[in-house]
Amino acid sequence: MPVLDFWYEFASPYSRLAAARVDEVAAGAGVAVRWRPFLLGPIFADQGWNTSPFNLYPAKGRYLWRDVGRIARGRGLPSVTPTPFPQNGLVAARLATIGVADGWVAPFSKAVFEAEFGAGRDISDHRVLGGLLADLGLEPDSLISRARTDQVVKERLRAETEEARSLGIFGAPSFVTEDGEMFWGDDRLADALAWAAAGGDPAWRGGR
Amino acid sequence: MPVLDFWYEFASPYSRLAAARVDEVAAGAGVAVRWRPFLLGPIFADQGWNTSPFNLYPAKGRYLWRDVGRIARGRGLPSVTPTPFPQNGLVAARLATIGVADGWVAPFSKAVFEAEFGAGRDISDHRVLGGLLADLGLEPDSLISRARTDQVVKERLRAETEEARSLGIFGAPSFVTEDGEMFWGDDRLADALAWAAAGGDPAWRGGR
Repeated sequence: MPVLDFWYEFASPYSRLAAARVDEVAAGAGVAVRWRPFLLGPIFADQGWNTSPFNLYPAKGRYLWRDVGRIARGRGLPSVTPTPFPQNGLVAARLATIGVADGWVAPFSKAVFEAEFGAGRDISDHRVLGGLLADLGLEPDSLISRARTDQVVKERLRAETEEARSLGIFGAPSFVTEDGEMFWGDDRLADALAWAAAGGDPAWRGGR
Repeated sequence: MPVLDFWYEFASPYSRLAAARVDEVAAGAGVAVRWRPFLLGPIFADQGWNTSPFNLYPAKGRYLWRDVGRIARGRGLPSVTPTPFPQNGLVAARLATIGVADGWVAPFSKAVFEAEFGAGRDISDHRVLGGLLADLGLEPDSLISRARTDQVVKERLRAETEEARSLGIFGAPSFVTEDGEMFWGDDRLADALAWAAAGGDPAWRGGR
């Protein structure tokens, strides 16, 4: 079964749109999804940005929120602009990193995104994260403690972010196929899945 | 018949992808297209940019060219990275401005885009532009002379660029419906047409 890597950042509204549908859409295409949480902050810093491009460019930012809202509405999802934006997703990303190893990364990440962009909750708040973990039947106290202090977890997330950078990732969500083809944005998910399913460029494989 | 404004800039590769299909796709949706050439340079300058974002952010730029090439291939279009990039499209945009008034803006603009992104020709070269005009049965010498010196044409293009800015346009292509809804990017054309055809948000109209 072909595998598609789904690279996402918890502060990113388009990552949320992708997270809400990627497993279902990929299953329909016969493609498996690997959830790859990482941090965009260090990569944005490479580009000279100290915050989200949504904030850096006001006209673009206004449009992007409108675009996100339209898409969410079309998919029947609530859409809230978090305050503050961007949210600090460091602890959430470390928890998701634990979840990759422990098998609950997808449901946890979806819960974080829905709390943030669906319900306007603050995902840097440990009580919020703890509630989401408890809802999944996980142990909030020990997991949040590990997320805050475990050097192995910190290093793993740092290494993932480094791998994202080395793949040329500059934004989120990004999808990367097994043969290294990258697709940026929720709006490229269908293209990424077609490429993954074909094992190469479907425009060639299809004889177009 | 609903009308969709198609705002485009000659240096923009995604504008070219949209230009090559907008009339046909819009006709299928029962929507008329108004071609609105404008200049992105002054608007990019508002954002602190002195060149294309393709050039400002190397990782993003590499990806964008790859994305453009993939899409072009999928649509059976040749795809060349112009040298230099971005091209100086000022005279071409002034010619297109004349073409808006005279009824040949769409075929001329498509010819400019194909020369630039399909054949790698320099669209700041008056001989290239003259050849494209002649191919359309137009008078190259008098039109290029008007594009270089006619104050009315210069002012009209400046006013169009000002209108784009006042609409909140920050990139190209952008599509704007009669009720003022904006969609940015070739990949939003279908959404823009659905909105235009429904006379409002199709997510609401459709009862979703």
